[in-house]
Amino acid sequence: MAGVVYITRRETFAAAHRLFRPELSDEENLKLFGKCSHPNWHGHNYTLEVIVTGEVDTDTGFVMDLKDLKEIVRKNVISKVDHKNLNLDTDFMKGKIPTSENIVIAIWNELEDKITKGKLFSIKLYETENNYFEYKGE
Amino acid sequence: MAGVVYITRRETFAAAHRLFRPELSDEENLKLFGKCSHPNWHGHNYTLEVIVTGEVDTDTGFVMDLKDLKEIVRKNVISKVDHKNLNLDTDFMKGKIPTSENIVIAIWNELEDKITKGKLFSIKLYETENNYFEYKGE
Amino acid sequence: MAGVVYITRRETFAAAHRLFRPELSDEENLKLFGKCSHPNWHGHNYTLEVIVTGEVDTDTGFVMDLKDLKEIVRKNVISKVDHKNLNLDTDFMKGKIPTSENIVIAIWNELEDKITKGKLFSIKLYETENNYFEYKGE
Amino acid sequence: MAGVVYITRRETFAAAHRLFRPELSDEENLKLFGKCSHPNWHGHNYTLEVIVTGEVDTDTGFVMDLKDLKEIVRKNVISKVDHKNLNLDTDFMKGKIPTSENIVIAIWNELEDKITKGKLFSIKLYETENNYFEYKGE
Amino acid sequence: MAGVVYITRRETFAAAHRLFRPELSDEENLKLFGKCSHPNWHGHNYTLEVIVTGEVDTDTGFVMDLKDLKEIVRKNVISKVDHKNLNLDTDFMKGKIPTSENIVIAIWNELEDKITKGKLFSIKLYETENNYFEYKGE
Amino acid sequence: MAGVVYITRRETFAAAHRLFRPELSDEENLKLFGKCSHPNWHGHNYTLEVIVTGEVDTDTGFVMDLKDLKEIVRKNVISKVDHKNLNLDTDFMKGKIPTSENIVIAIWNELEDKITKGKLFSIKLYETENNYFEYKGE
Repeated sequence: MAGVVYITRRETFAAAHRLFRPELSDEENLKLFGKCSHPNWHGHNYTLEVIVTGEVDTDTGFVMDLKDLKEIVRKNVISKVDHKNLNLDTDFMKGKIPTSENIVIAIWNELEDKITKGKLFSIKLYETENNYFEYKGE
Repeated sequence: MAGVVYITRRETFAAAHRLFRPELSDEENLKLFGKCSHPNWHGHNYTLEVIVTGEVDTDTGFVMDLKDLKEIVRKNVISKVDHKNLNLDTDFMKGKIPTSENIVIAIWNELEDKITKGKLFSIKLYETENNYFEYKGE
Repeated sequence: MAGVVYITRRETFAAAHRLFRPELSDEENLKLFGKCSHPNWHGHNYTLEVIVTGEVDTDTGFVMDLKDLKEIVRKNVISKVDHKNLNLDTDFMKGKIPTSENIVIAIWNELEDKITKGKLFSIKLYETENNYFEYKGE
Repeated sequence: MAGVVYITRRETFAAAHRLFRPELSDEENLKLFGKCSHPNWHGHNYTLEVIVTGEVDTDTGFVMDLKDLKEIVRKNVISKVDHKNLNLDTDFMKGKIPTSENIVIAIWNELEDKITKGKLFSIKLYETENNYFEYKGE
Repeated sequence: MAGVVYITRRETFAAAHRLFRPELSDEENLKLFGKCSHPNWHGHNYTLEVIVTGEVDTDTGFVMDLKDLKEIVRKNVISKVDHKNLNLDTDFMKGKIPTSENIVIAIWNELEDKITKGKLFSIKLYETENNYFEYKGE
Repeated sequence: MAGVVYITRRETFAAAHRLFRPELSDEENLKLFGKCSHPNWHGHNYTLEVIVTGEVDTDTGFVMDLKDLKEIVRKNVISKVDHKNLNLDTDFMKGKIPTSENIVIAIWNELEDKITKGKLFSIKLYETENNYFEYKGE
């Protein structure tokens, strides 16, 4: 048994979003969410890290092939968020406030059962250079 | 005479935009601008560098006080683009396609005559980690 | 129940310090702390990460509002260390050798009871590009 | 008792490698490892982080002196991998496929008993800007 | 006339190489090139920046479409160097010592006449985090 | 003739400093230099880039050997500023206000005649992540 390793694939995407609750007025949303509730949207270059853990396969030296992980992440997540509006376009964010907290949980739920070699350990998301968010399925 | 130095102030902003020409259909815009023309907007964390050049003042050791440069950039540029939509909200981008090429020229025009100690040398803008744009008033 | 997320706010500060024990001579301090004990001080651009964990609030999609976390960190930490001397100026470092190990513990102690939504999970401090330090309240 | 802190030393090295199993043909290796099996080798700038944890020593404010950690890492790891071929030159990789998974486990085994103040907590390795690997002795 | 802008596309590649002159012995090469002449090769994650300059097209707001620039760079350069050996595999480096100086000149020569909108201004290459090289056709 | 290439060596140093003019009071210095005049010093991790330009030597593929450039920079600059106080310890800053503008000019003057293969082209200095300074001997 070789040992348990944590492997990470990093991807980036550019998206628009707005933090607001549709049942509130623009003024109430501004009070709750500040400039992030701007009605004409704003956007970010997000950096996503998907961390998978498992035993190293002695035949390949891999936990899982990172090319496969890249394809899973691109098909199930990046294609739905890159150059999109997270409020209007992304199926897995429908009905949710697109805070980074809610995004990491939703991405976990999209990916968890797609990882069949090893298992999903963590989703990290950098929204700006001054903040990031992590979810571990707790 | 101390010498001529180039000083740079770096700022960041998060904005939404869409590349399109209003006289064209969505299909024609898609052909011309690709995924950047997505009708529901997308966005970026932009990094802006404003470079000023001039003789070093022997009384202060400064070309100009970077605190003053920061205030000029924040008042005239950042306040108009951060957490905004570049197509809809930014006065100096009205009627222009918000490519990074057009943004750096517009920011130069906003700032050029506000710099009264030294002179504006260059505007650099990073749109993603894989591209950046520079304008030197040529 | 939405899930437990870890949120991080990043801040930077520029400070001077010196590693030494006042009861020792400069020669003894040099032997113990090397160039970090230089009597005329040296300094760093420190990068601080404050990590808070908790349930996501379904009303806001936040663990806690990062603007609030930013203000707590700036008021209680950054205002006491930025453009300061950690040995001479910072109340929470008085009587302590300002190693990064001691700094992360002291910052934890400053912040722990100020976080009232979620709870403090970790303090990370980057002293140079080649080292960083983390404290989790253990 | 001051508390338990995690301290990290970062090093970089430039190495060549090839992912392949000598009992397989080039075609079979290409199928298994893709472009990473290219027979004429390729290479990377690796970034290594060595994380040690322990009680802070009240005499020094250190878990362990980072200069000592740097010397341990350079002597036992960097000298054997920097400007080397991981398949042909590195004693602790002999007979192993040089995936990053196998490298982090092998570096852990090289360093574990050399850390005599505190104990080794984690080995992290960045192979490119888009992936990294971590081993914690599990 | 909108103005002249400099646009940059960034790409990365991972390659093996060795600095040596075949007419010299290993000892002579070691004296001339140091550890970079190691006979079993070593490698790097290179970062390449291709800078093109020209008038901004008022129909598109582009100097040239960065998607086209990306394809030109990938087809003519990246496909020949990524996961390759620069000494053995890369046609445009045949017979040349693969120093970064020689690589930037060779990449310029590969790309100069492929840029038909605007013109090539500069090739920058980062070999490690501590050095980079630039060629402007002089 | 191979061509003219610009080569850059990057170094870092950690130093304390204070912006002030000794003939002024602390209050007057505070008015002129703000928090940078704090009497108990503060400090930075500086990043220095030294850029040399020249014809590529066809025997080596080098403008000049970067190992030689590293040694020249470390001997003449880094040894005098790293873990030092720029106001009190650094001979080439004596009598000068240690702004980054004055530092880049002073480093240029230290290095210009030490570069005997190629010639010095530029000195760049990053004081924080939000500003940098460049001097080209003008």
